[in-house]
This record gives sequence, structure tokens and C-alpha cells, in this order.
Amino acid sequence: MNKESSKINHSLNVNVSVDCVVIGFDDKELNVLLIKRLQAGDEKAYSPYKLPGSPIYMDESLDDAAKRVLVDCTGLKYVSLEQFRAYGEIDRLRRAEDVQWLERTHGLASTPERIVSISYIAFVRQKKFRQLTETYQATWMPVSKLDDIDLAFDHRQIVTDAIRKIRRDVEVQPSIVFEILPRKFTMLQLRAVYETIHGEKLDIRNFHKKMTNLKYIVQLDELEKDVPHRAAHLYKFDRVVYKRLRGSI
Amino acid sequence: MNKESSKINHSLNVNVSVDCVVIGFDDKELNVLLIKRLQAGDEKAYSPYKLPGSPIYMDESLDDAAKRVLVDCTGLKYVSLEQFRAYGEIDRLRRAEDVQWLERTHGLASTPERIVSISYIAFVRQKKFRQLTETYQATWMPVSKLDDIDLAFDHRQIVTDAIRKIRRDVEVQPSIVFEILPRKFTMLQLRAVYETIHGEKLDIRNFHKKMTNLKYIVQLDELEKDVPHRAAHLYKFDRVVYKRLRGSI
Repeated sequence: MNKESSKINHSLNVNVSVDCVVIGFDDKELNVLLIKRLQAGDEKAYSPYKLPGSPIYMDESLDDAAKRVLVDCTGLKYVSLEQFRAYGEIDRLRRAEDVQWLERTHGLASTPERIVSISYIAFVRQKKFRQLTETYQATWMPVSKLDDIDLAFDHRQIVTDAIRKIRRDVEVQPSIVFEILPRKFTMLQLRAVYETIHGEKLDIRNFHKKMTNLKYIVQLDELEKDVPHRAAHLYKFDRVVYKRLRGSI
Repeated sequence: MNKESSKINHSLNVNVSVDCVVIGFDDKELNVLLIKRLQAGDEKAYSPYKLPGSPIYMDESLDDAAKRVLVDCTGLKYVSLEQFRAYGEIDRLRRAEDVQWLERTHGLASTPERIVSISYIAFVRQKKFRQLTETYQATWMPVSKLDDIDLAFDHRQIVTDAIRKIRRDVEVQPSIVFEILPRKFTMLQLRAVYETIHGEKLDIRNFHKKMTNLKYIVQLDELEKDVPHRAAHLYKFDRVVYKRLRGSI
């Protein structure tokens, strides 16, 4: 595509960064993937948590930068990332500890006055990535506990906006629910996802009736296994039926 | 907010820009506001059209930059702008004429290798701004004619994405239709908006029935004035009812 590819500049573009909000579900509530921002001997100098992110490289697109960040920070591959908002308030770098951390981590002589961050959102099956998060100093943080921790930069704002977006989007694009549920799920799990997204308890009977009326939620000829209570029916999401009903790709 | 406000740097940040997709409707079809990119004596050197846009200033947020651009380029004030996507492909500045134009317009000694652009979308009542667009070298271009003209940078992609977004959003957020219609409108105008957005003719009877069933579309005790045909009923959009029905702000 680029005829001057031999001249490609593989240096960091520190004026622009990407940050990824990765959302999972642990059968109880929504969790967001955070990185522990620790440096040897300096543990107290930094807010402990941040979103997975990085300045972009001169020779990568925003989308490619977001994919790289997820692989580098968490080992997560083949995750569908959607761009959702650019953050460019003038005081994003107001905290000295954030600036110091940036300079040390990326070996910068100085930090630019402004860094605009493009945020991405991804939904994943959390259980699949339990092992990987231990390897990469990444951790699943319950969304309900975010108020109790300190987050670097404007990452609290980014996560808050992302959760608000999920609440809004799930009404018009319910398929996102099935990206964080196991492939085979119970009605209890399905209800728990909706309850954690909306932050309120739902009526069991109404919920069950509404969901089983949806043609794209299919009851399987299988029951839960290895559970201490009576095994519940398993369901699956039928994406083909879903897309046909919605008339979209 | 910023305790170092005395040190504020009012220079351009040429690494990041904003571009505005302003959408209007002229009773027939959707139009997008474009700026004629002319310079005295150099008319042939540049693609004639671009979106209203600008690099950001160091001391303004992305949202403020987008508002400034609209006022500077078009005189449009009090327009609601929504951020919709960041554009950061590595070859955005591949055309020499675009780079030259940037350097002349903004008096730059050189252009950075990358400029990431944050795009905004706005819906306006086009008739209100007819006069202003003449003053500011801005012009309404029918969306259906965009294929026939050359657009600077990746602005064709940005406009295409914006139109696609409108088609998708109008289903879940029909209020955008009433931002481009006159405050009092006929069923013919309402149908024309939906037809231009979807790019297809709609059945008149079905459309009329569907729309008059919506509680937020209110028939007024008024008829069209000064029309050569039989005057049609006028309708208005009731935002209060709309919000109540949707249970949102």
C-alpha cells in the first residue's frame, strides 16, 4: 500500500495513545481488565492500576496499536476490539506520577504536553483468560469495586463511559451479552449478566418468559454438569437466527 | 481547573485534528457541509472540497476544537456535536497536495508524519444556515453526489462512515430525524427524510400509518402555507413524550 515502506518509521508517536477496556463476566458480575502499574522499588510512587494501553507506533494504525496492546499486556489474541471514544481533555497528564511513569516505561526524555488517547472496548469470555492474566500482571477488577481504587490518568472516566455505553448498547444490540457468557449457559447466568449490566435485580419469571420467547436463545438437550444443586438446562445463542431476525450482517 | 493556567500554550498541536460532518436536509435529500479548499492562484493544485476541520490548539479540548471549527468555518453556533470516530491510518497524509495545503493554511515549516483526526457529527436545520454558508465558502453537497467529487485526505471515508452510522442510528434513535427537519413538518417531508437516509422509496400508506401511531409525532391544528398544491397538515416532534416513552434523558 505504501510505496515508501522501506522508509517506515518504527518509533513511538507519543502524541497519541490507545487504551483498551476489556470486559468479562465471572458468573456474578462484570469485570474490567486492569494492569498493575508497579516498578521495582517504586511501588508507592504510582497509582497501582491502569487500563492496558500504549502510545502508538509511527508505522501502525490505531486499530493495530490496540490489538498489539492487548497481546503485549495480556496475551489476549483474536479479540474483537471496537473503537469507542477519543479522550483529549487538556489536563489528562496533570498528575506528576503519571508523567513519570510514562517516561520511565517508554524511555522518554520528556513527555509531550498533550496525549490524546483513543479508547477501545472488547468483550471476552473471562474464564478463557484466567491463566494469562496471571502471567502478564493483568487482573480482573469487579466493576462494582472500581470506586475503591485509584486509576491512572483519566482511566476512571474511560471505564465509566464504557460501562454506560454497554448499558445503552445492550438494549439495541443484545448480542454483546453472549460474547461474555460461556457458549453454553444457564438462565441463571443469563439473568446475572443482565442484572450486573443494569445494576438491579430482575423478576425471575418475567425474565425467563421473555428470554425463552427469543428465537435466538436455543435450549439445548443438555444439563449443567458437576453442580451441587439440581442441574439446570443449558442454552446457546444462535447467531444465524439473531442476524436474520435483525436483518443485518 | 488548571492551576498552571498562566502557562497555557496557545499553539497548534499538529499531531491531532478534528473534522466535522455536518448533516442537513433540503426537503429532498441529505446534504453534507463541505469547505471549498481554494487558494488564490492555486485553484488547480488542491482537491476542491474537504470537511470543516483543523488541528487542535494545545489549550483546547477535542470538543472545544470541534466547536471552534464550526464557528470559524461556517458561522454555525450552538450546534450539538457528537464525537463519532478517530481516524489514524498511517497513510492519511499520502497525497502531496494535502500536505502542501496544510502547511500553507497553518503556516507550518513542516507537517508531522502522522495526524490523527477525531471526527464529529452534527445534525442541523439546513435552511437556517443557507446565508452563512455563502459567507464562509462552505457549501451543502448532496450525499448522492459525493461519488462525483474529489475529497481531501480520508474525508470520503469519514463521510461514508458517518452516513452508515446515521442509517444504523435512526432505527434506535429516531430523534435525529427531527433535528434536520423543520420544527413544523409535513408527512411528505418526514417520509422524504427516511427515504433519503435509507436510500429507498417507502410505501406511503404504511409509512403514514406507522408514523401517526407514534405518540411523539403530534398533528398540529395548522396547514402548510403558500404552497401551489393542496396544503398538507403540519406535525411536530414532541421531545418530552419521546423521552418519556424511551425512559431516558
